[in-house]
Amino acid sequence: MTDTTVEKTPVTLLGLGAMGAALARAWLAAGHPLTVWNRTPARATALTADGARAARTAAEAVAANPLIVVCLLDDASVGEALDGADLAGKDLVDLTTGTPAQARARAEWAHERGARYLDGGIMAIPPMIGVPEAGGYVFYSGSRDLFAQHQQTLAVPAGTTYVGENAGFAALYDVALLSAMYGMFAGVTHAFALIREEDIDPVSFAPLLADWLVAMAPAVHQTAEHLRAGGPTEEDVSSLAMQVAGIPTFLGTAEQQGVSPELLSPYFALMRRGLTESESGGKESPTDLVDLLLH
Amino acid sequence: MTDTTVEKTPVTLLGLGAMGAALARAWLAAGHPLTVWNRTPARATALTADGARAARTAAEAVAANPLIVVCLLDDASVGEALDGADLAGKDLVDLTTGTPAQARARAEWAHERGARYLDGGIMAIPPMIGVPEAGGYVFYSGSRDLFAQHQQTLAVPAGTTYVGENAGFAALYDVALLSAMYGMFAGVTHAFALIREEDIDPVSFAPLLADWLVAMAPAVHQTAEHLRAGGPTEEDVSSLAMQVAGIPTFLGTAEQQGVSPELLSPYFALMRRGLTESESGGKESPTDLVDLLLH
Repeated sequence: MTDTTVEKTPVTLLGLGAMGAALARAWLAAGHPLTVWNRTPARATALTADGARAARTAAEAVAANPLIVVCLLDDASVGEALDGADLAGKDLVDLTTGTPAQARARAEWAHERGARYLDGGIMAIPPMIGVPEAGGYVFYSGSRDLFAQHQQTLAVPAGTTYVGENAGFAALYDVALLSAMYGMFAGVTHAFALIREEDIDPVSFAPLLADWLVAMAPAVHQTAEHLRAGGPTEEDVSSLAMQVAGIPTFLGTAEQQGVSPELLSPYFALMRRGLTESESGGKESPTDLVDLLLH
Repeated sequence: MTDTTVEKTPVTLLGLGAMGAALARAWLAAGHPLTVWNRTPARATALTADGARAARTAAEAVAANPLIVVCLLDDASVGEALDGADLAGKDLVDLTTGTPAQARARAEWAHERGARYLDGGIMAIPPMIGVPEAGGYVFYSGSRDLFAQHQQTLAVPAGTTYVGENAGFAALYDVALLSAMYGMFAGVTHAFALIREEDIDPVSFAPLLADWLVAMAPAVHQTAEHLRAGGPTEEDVSSLAMQVAGIPTFLGTAEQQGVSPELLSPYFALMRRGLTESESGGKESPTDLVDLLLH
């Protein structure tokens, strides 16, 4: 699969945590010349056996190549690592996890230093990197030109999804999807707690739970249609009132099973608020709960 | 597909709300003689055009057939509807939503009246009833003999999954799966709120969100393995500490987008508690959060 007729774009990678190391191995395996730097040098020298060049400083690593990928602990670490580096004419791809505002500020910071900037939000865990069939991918936003020029190189460790020139959008999409996932994990935690002290094998229970969540996930399309249309449609079958009527069964079951309802009670409270507002005119469907969360 | 050589089991159905009416239509379409009763008679007489027999009282409907299916608003309605009925020798299948304790008490109540009892928890919304490819199904628990004898009839409106002789288990499985779903919906509500005031089309965003949730749902298998093993395994890649370190990004993004963190903050608080307990020895993985919910 290695293309011997085209030289692979050299990459500089700052940050060799679990994710950075996985990115490094993917680029090395694909034949990209790679210069790495890490705050604790041992992790960088470990990669030299696989063909990476370990720079002594971040500035030296930045100087080595035009394309700089950063995957550090947080945005403050990015500022510290790049403090003494000459970014003029560089293409900076920042895969460090952060907020949309941090990404926009970092983009401006990079522009002031003469660099193009692309922010990335990684939708994968390290074992999914370099394994296309694992389905991991990275949201990118910021410089469209940088993305277009380097898409092939960026696509080596994981799929690429460009979501706009607003440098904050990759972080926003990333945080939005992970937030939804944490909600699902909270529900899953509650579900396992409910059966924890019964004679029920969690491993036999898990497929029922996973299949149900997969079957219900497409409900997000209906929510999206409602949000675009500005309100619920007639297809709403299980009305908010029906759902609110069922809340005592959920709370009662949790109590019977000795489970704290703390992870779900805020959503039940929001459903009740939505119904109250509905009865005083306006909100009619659970999908309008989205707007109740906005300040 | 109608089997003309075998007589279809006659069914009595009490309760013709949206779900009851869907059940009725499925049994009628499959050629089962059906006697129906509803507190407000109009819904019952409407079904006579399709071949149902409308009983004037619940007791009369119960007397008509050996197999009685009940799908009412709540458990109290079941007690009221069946108050004057002779249940001796009957097979009572209770699809009314309720808690495990309500189901067990209703089973005992039925046994005292000489009936066999099977409780059901419906994992479907009315449009999925009678549509096998929609994937809806019903959890059943209680009398194994009743289930074995009537499985074919019960399988007409939706798939059947028997989960044990403990009459409360169908309700427990039902509530557990729906609880996890509400957690997912809470996360989805938060995610849509995050993008609500940006120039992002929710309908274009929805497939990214749905695909991500589908991709992450299998994480429940890992949680289940940990729970069975009594602790986290070495395969834990994203440690609880890493996740806790990311919390400020989630809260910061919510604040930047004007979104209340109320739906997710209890889960974040639980993760922090889990980490604190881990540092004082013991808990090491997010999966142990399950036990932190138990009183």
